[in-house]
Amino acid sequence: MIDAGIIGGSGYTGGELLRLLKNHEKVNITAVTSRQYAGVSVSRVHPHLRGMEIKFDDISIENIDADLVFTATPHGASMNIVPKLIERGIKVIDLSGDYRFDDINEYEKWYNLKHTAPLESVYGLPEVYKEEIKKANLVANPGCFPTGSILASIPLVKENLADTLIVDSKTGVSGAGIKPTEATHYPNLGDNVVPYAVTSHRHMPEIQQEVQKFGDVKVSFTPHLVPVIRGILTTVHTFVKEDVSSDYIKEIYDVFYEKEPFVRVLDLDEIPRLSAVRGSNYCDIGCFQIDRNGRLVIISAIDNLVKGASGQAIQNMNIMFGFDEKESLDIIGLHP
Amino acid sequence: MIDAGIIGGSGYTGGELLRLLKNHEKVNITAVTSRQYAGVSVSRVHPHLRGMEIKFDDISIENIDADLVFTATPHGASMNIVPKLIERGIKVIDLSGDYRFDDINEYEKWYNLKHTAPLESVYGLPEVYKEEIKKANLVANPGCFPTGSILASIPLVKENLADTLIVDSKTGVSGAGIKPTEATHYPNLGDNVVPYAVTSHRHMPEIQQEVQKFGDVKVSFTPHLVPVIRGILTTVHTFVKEDVSSDYIKEIYDVFYEKEPFVRVLDLDEIPRLSAVRGSNYCDIGCFQIDRNGRLVIISAIDNLVKGASGQAIQNMNIMFGFDEKESLDIIGLHP
Amino acid sequence: MIDAGIIGGSGYTGGELLRLLKNHEKVNITAVTSRQYAGVSVSRVHPHLRGMEIKFDDISIENIDADLVFTATPHGASMNIVPKLIERGIKVIDLSGDYRFDDINEYEKWYNLKHTAPLESVYGLPEVYKEEIKKANLVANPGCFPTGSILASIPLVKENLADTLIVDSKTGVSGAGIKPTEATHYPNLGDNVVPYAVTSHRHMPEIQQEVQKFGDVKVSFTPHLVPVIRGILTTVHTFVKEDVSSDYIKEIYDVFYEKEPFVRVLDLDEIPRLSAVRGSNYCDIGCFQIDRNGRLVIISAIDNLVKGASGQAIQNMNIMFGFDEKESLDIIGLHP
Amino acid sequence: MIDAGIIGGSGYTGGELLRLLKNHEKVNITAVTSRQYAGVSVSRVHPHLRGMEIKFDDISIENIDADLVFTATPHGASMNIVPKLIERGIKVIDLSGDYRFDDINEYEKWYNLKHTAPLESVYGLPEVYKEEIKKANLVANPGCFPTGSILASIPLVKENLADTLIVDSKTGVSGAGIKPTEATHYPNLGDNVVPYAVTSHRHMPEIQQEVQKFGDVKVSFTPHLVPVIRGILTTVHTFVKEDVSSDYIKEIYDVFYEKEPFVRVLDLDEIPRLSAVRGSNYCDIGCFQIDRNGRLVIISAIDNLVKGASGQAIQNMNIMFGFDEKESLDIIGLHP
Repeated sequence: MIDAGIIGGSGYTGGELLRLLKNHEKVNITAVTSRQYAGVSVSRVHPHLRGMEIKFDDISIENIDADLVFTATPHGASMNIVPKLIERGIKVIDLSGDYRFDDINEYEKWYNLKHTAPLESVYGLPEVYKEEIKKANLVANPGCFPTGSILASIPLVKENLADTLIVDSKTGVSGAGIKPTEATHYPNLGDNVVPYAVTSHRHMPEIQQEVQKFGDVKVSFTPHLVPVIRGILTTVHTFVKEDVSSDYIKEIYDVFYEKEPFVRVLDLDEIPRLSAVRGSNYCDIGCFQIDRNGRLVIISAIDNLVKGASGQAIQNMNIMFGFDEKESLDIIGLHP
Repeated sequence: MIDAGIIGGSGYTGGELLRLLKNHEKVNITAVTSRQYAGVSVSRVHPHLRGMEIKFDDISIENIDADLVFTATPHGASMNIVPKLIERGIKVIDLSGDYRFDDINEYEKWYNLKHTAPLESVYGLPEVYKEEIKKANLVANPGCFPTGSILASIPLVKENLADTLIVDSKTGVSGAGIKPTEATHYPNLGDNVVPYAVTSHRHMPEIQQEVQKFGDVKVSFTPHLVPVIRGILTTVHTFVKEDVSSDYIKEIYDVFYEKEPFVRVLDLDEIPRLSAVRGSNYCDIGCFQIDRNGRLVIISAIDNLVKGASGQAIQNMNIMFGFDEKESLDIIGLHP
Repeated sequence: MIDAGIIGGSGYTGGELLRLLKNHEKVNITAVTSRQYAGVSVSRVHPHLRGMEIKFDDISIENIDADLVFTATPHGASMNIVPKLIERGIKVIDLSGDYRFDDINEYEKWYNLKHTAPLESVYGLPEVYKEEIKKANLVANPGCFPTGSILASIPLVKENLADTLIVDSKTGVSGAGIKPTEATHYPNLGDNVVPYAVTSHRHMPEIQQEVQKFGDVKVSFTPHLVPVIRGILTTVHTFVKEDVSSDYIKEIYDVFYEKEPFVRVLDLDEIPRLSAVRGSNYCDIGCFQIDRNGRLVIISAIDNLVKGASGQAIQNMNIMFGFDEKESLDIIGLHP
Repeated sequence: MIDAGIIGGSGYTGGELLRLLKNHEKVNITAVTSRQYAGVSVSRVHPHLRGMEIKFDDISIENIDADLVFTATPHGASMNIVPKLIERGIKVIDLSGDYRFDDINEYEKWYNLKHTAPLESVYGLPEVYKEEIKKANLVANPGCFPTGSILASIPLVKENLADTLIVDSKTGVSGAGIKPTEATHYPNLGDNVVPYAVTSHRHMPEIQQEVQKFGDVKVSFTPHLVPVIRGILTTVHTFVKEDVSSDYIKEIYDVFYEKEPFVRVLDLDEIPRLSAVRGSNYCDIGCFQIDRNGRLVIISAIDNLVKGASGQAIQNMNIMFGFDEKESLDIIGLHP
């Protein structure tokens, strides 16, 4: 049994951490912070949590008593909080972008921020870094687009089958956060498709960083907002360098993810779709089709708030503390 | 530990029974029948169940070996199946309308069917019939609209505060089933609201039957399809017979549902909405506002496939077999 | 040919006025004001207007040169603008609530504002006040809910068939305006139904005021937000005082709206739905069913931004200036 | 003034032809055929057309009296009808795929049909074939995906800037037609993204055929269903062969489409989205961004039922008969 705190509990990732931790048998939630909502029941912000007897707190970082803290804080804010926790011997899983980059310059360039407190961290993608996560004090939880994009790409890159990846993602709008904006205004998104940050999304260098560790490859990335609440469907287009079959490609993915509890490699006649993973921690990967031009398509589907954020954070926690990796995450998606 | 079977597992209620039973510690699923999909993995029909190692079966009723069977079969089909199971000493929870009516004539009139096999049954609304359910061999699981409508109305009727109820429901389209129809065709429902069976829905007499057991009251009911997948929001309009306050009304509901694990009576400044119950077995009830004409409004929200169907069926099972009523249903909804 | 100005052109009603006036053969748009967007092309705010060569202006009220001005300004703002225009001999159609009430006290109570500049006005519902509109200098354009509710109710009230109306409306979210709020945040409304202002919406007294002119009746009103961009579907429940048939009721509506170009009374086997009026100035009215308790249901459907706002404003303009009432409004809705 | 007939008027393209032709000042609709709905008012199938006094007809091809016929018939059916009309001297605009291919073998391969009645035809993309359309007796109206894909690609290919195009389309579901199917079942598509025919869609060879006329290029195409009623957003990814700027690319498009009334080339800081073209005949093209890998992105947006089908058909008719190309199509889209 460990004590866990959540800093920044009033956003969607905070709400999901609470939802998913509720039935975790090894975790005791000791604090959920929110300056704005201090003293208010969590269910006032997250109405599905009605009945959960937890209130938001504005406890200072110095007074948090926990074995582990999830920092569900914005980019730029985490770097002011995480070092103080690490110093006190508290393990941290940071859901922001602050500790995801190997090269601080890349971070500073794409996030347009000065990084004032670099620390050693492990990139929290369990399918790649499980051993490192076990020993980590600070895990940088991956971005939502990178999770789906990297998992869809690395088996291919590892086999040296592609040198260029065109990653075209369609995302639900909950990834934009709990705060209303023009992009999330229902009349702007309902019955619509809205491309954004077409060649300049800051998840692009994060994908590039991780994928190139498996081989020499160039990643191009474009996201589109679709009228969906949860989920990212990622279509990876590439041109295979050798004359291979769909069966051969699928076999590579089967082997690569053989032992991974949360990656489901689909049969050739199935296709990933968001509803099959909605609310769950699964990443479905499939398609493996090749057209007459030698273009290969790999498609992945995740719930951006679960495998793309809070579920993956809990998966990382389970690994860090030696719990069953699936504890509290053995949840089936909501279809229809 | 009991053995349970599902007859008619290829529809949405079948899929939900499987999703919810997966983590039930006292239930072993011995058969999931489907003539059409015999031999096929359940995940081919219910993609969110990927990884669940169960195949559809076309086992005959006579060969089903179980302590309990859920009959997720259409109206009119259940009456051909249920008696054979009951005869063999198997307990049954029937999700169709076949065994919900006290008066066979009402059934035959509204369902336009001859009832060929009446049996003694208990109406499976645990908040009303818990003691009867404990001893029942056949539980008639309530309809989706009746569940939300009855729970929203009976405390009021019991206190003799209303003699007319106007029940205006807004329902997600999954209640229409897994088979494509004109009503469920996306271009017909997307960005639309479609009233149907405005004064003639067969759930109306079911609501009437149950509500009037608490007092003399006339129920008028109208459903509307809205572009939502899951959920029924029911607005009950009535005129209070006495000069009462919202606080007083809320107190009546608080007391009535005090011990019920799946009814959440909301505070006066909260309002039920579908996202707070999506995927969960909760029925949220609230509003209790009274306007200048003495009209009182009670609003309920349920997930039609869970509290309105499969979740309630499992709740009934838990009660019938002496399990914890919340076993495998202690699931928080999916908001956002 | 007249010159027309739009004050407050950056909201949805402003955008719709521009869309609908574009092909009006008798109107020359001389100014579209917006302080925030002065100098910016209207298509930057209203992307569907791309190609329309009009820029927002911050011209002062005193300098507007027009025969008619549409004030698409917020409640409370119109009263500061309208008198200045009227003084200068400019006719005004005001889309706010400021000039809709016969009794200033009702306005001040429900809008929680002091009315500083009362003026004589005509309530701009052409189906009721056509003759008055012809001669009016100031037309108060009706609210969106009142338009659908009043048109659905008055033939019945006029015939003294009902003394209580329960009006249950389901509205698209564009009625909440162009500015993002919690209510319009996609994750809050997508796949959801959200009741609001259940017994306290300020359109209630407006409906009451107009309906009671046709007979003694009490109006109770409740709106619900549904995941729809445009449209209001209104379900009016009442108990008929006499033993009448659906045919008889339909006949009353047929006669009442016989000469009205924008009210379509549906056959008994049809039902209004939003997609049939989307983008058009029609109000569809139908249902006329009566249940076993004597409850009668009348249903109306409008596009809240057209017949519920800008289309009706143009209809009023056409009447005021002696144009064909249908000029530039003879547009068919967008189904699917 | 010409007489026009519509064969196959009960589908979505039939409904759109009627909506758009209603205000056409040079066209008299003489027949709208439907075997299934003969004698029924068109508004029973297309509820937005309420008030239009036209009934479906089952007149035989031989008895149709018209200067022009739109064949809104399925693939494979058109080839049985079109020759009979052409023989009688009636001009035809065919909305099926039957007459779009230069090479019958390609047609037979991708449509899996034997072509029994090849005829000379002009591919009805006015931005490319305006002169040929003027003189044509048979115009093959382009497919919906090809319209958006070809218009987004050809200026680039003409300038020899790309040799590979990856075309990733997101389509509304009305393109699947008026008949309910699993793909169009609301619970299957709502809140979801569903890729289909990932490397095998029959619009791919159609795009390839037309694009390669402008230069040597390989086209790869993948469509995705999104929860949208109308509209196709197409993202074309390519790698530019030279070191060019976004300004330079935009200039190429500006020049290419300078005189085209229905293609709007957007400024560099705008991005196409579906709501800007909803219900209109416009094709918006924009983006022109280039990432650090030299990948260029061009995005187009159309309404699949208008510029992607019936609107384009009317545009072709206007050209064939010497009417103003914009007659009855000068309609602004519906945003929000």
